[in-house]
Amino acid sequence: MERDDPIQRLILELARLPGIGERSATRLAFHIIRWSQDGGAAGSLARDLAAALIEVTDKVGLCSSCHNLCMGERCGVCADPRRDPALLCVVEGVPDLRAIEATATFRGRYHVLHGALAPLDGVGPEDLKVAELMARLESDDITEIILATNADVEGDATALYLAKLIKPLGIRVTRLASGIPLGGELEYIDQATLGRALDERREF
Amino acid sequence: MERDDPIQRLILELARLPGIGERSATRLAFHIIRWSQDGGAAGSLARDLAAALIEVTDKVGLCSSCHNLCMGERCGVCADPRRDPALLCVVEGVPDLRAIEATATFRGRYHVLHGALAPLDGVGPEDLKVAELMARLESDDITEIILATNADVEGDATALYLAKLIKPLGIRVTRLASGIPLGGELEYIDQATLGRALDERREF
Repeated sequence: MERDDPIQRLILELARLPGIGERSATRLAFHIIRWSQDGGAAGSLARDLAAALIEVTDKVGLCSSCHNLCMGERCGVCADPRRDPALLCVVEGVPDLRAIEATATFRGRYHVLHGALAPLDGVGPEDLKVAELMARLESDDITEIILATNADVEGDATALYLAKLIKPLGIRVTRLASGIPLGGELEYIDQATLGRALDERREF
Repeated sequence: MERDDPIQRLILELARLPGIGERSATRLAFHIIRWSQDGGAAGSLARDLAAALIEVTDKVGLCSSCHNLCMGERCGVCADPRRDPALLCVVEGVPDLRAIEATATFRGRYHVLHGALAPLDGVGPEDLKVAELMARLESDDITEIILATNADVEGDATALYLAKLIKPLGIRVTRLASGIPLGGELEYIDQATLGRALDERREF
């Protein structure tokens, strides 16, 4: 094979994606090349993927208010006048925001931190959108903050840190409920979750 | 999220790749978007991948002689005058050719079939580069054909079919050796392989 090999280049680029090693990248590259050799409809698949990559890079930015991904100045949630501006849900990342949106049960707005506190990995509050959150709390009329960070060590630490910052402002701070997932069977639930579900039992 | 959403489009394009479902595609898409939001060096990663996809589509074609992937009229192997033109190795696909090249033990040339016979899937000889192989045998001065198709049902059937076509031409036809892989322990080798290794035992 030639030295300045486009196939090798594609393999290397694909191998940069998370969870894709050199073997998977090679398999994907040859699959993509088979598309391009097929001509016709399949021939445009590699081009479509390239166009989608460029479009995402060119058009997608961060919402100036909540730091959700969006195409203009403000994201669809922030621009929607029907969303309750007094209720703010703080999430670690955009996938979390999308997961909550998919439930269609939340009618407030969001604030995306773009990460969680992880001192061992060198991620401090200044690496997250914490200052931006505090600025919003000063300017906007917010009455409740839902801390919807993950239920893991980093997520809990981030929630604790934010709660300490926000509570003195007189704003109600809540956290997503922990407990047994719907459809969960006690026999198969991990000890930590079951323990938490017991601690946080509610009146029936 | 907006209806005509570039993020959703990227997810759908990525999900077309083999072995990548919607969940993996979503994870990959958000990783790529994180690149593009990072700016600087990481910001160009999505663009680099897009450029590699387009380059592969634009520049990579099939060698007019052996049907290997290549950038010009003939591939590097066919263009190399040091390769023995009398020895032809027939493979199912380009990854197979690359695997054999990686061993650095073969000094002949190749012919890529771009598939294997699979009557149940409707793949017949006319779907493979069989006619092109027979044309090469007529015009070129080839003394040995190594049938290096896979050691599975389709590969064996393809080898058998080709051997029947080629042997009447008076050309020597060989097949890759089957047996125990190097480093293999008899205890863990499957029965079929061990049986074949016994059948094809050689003088020591």
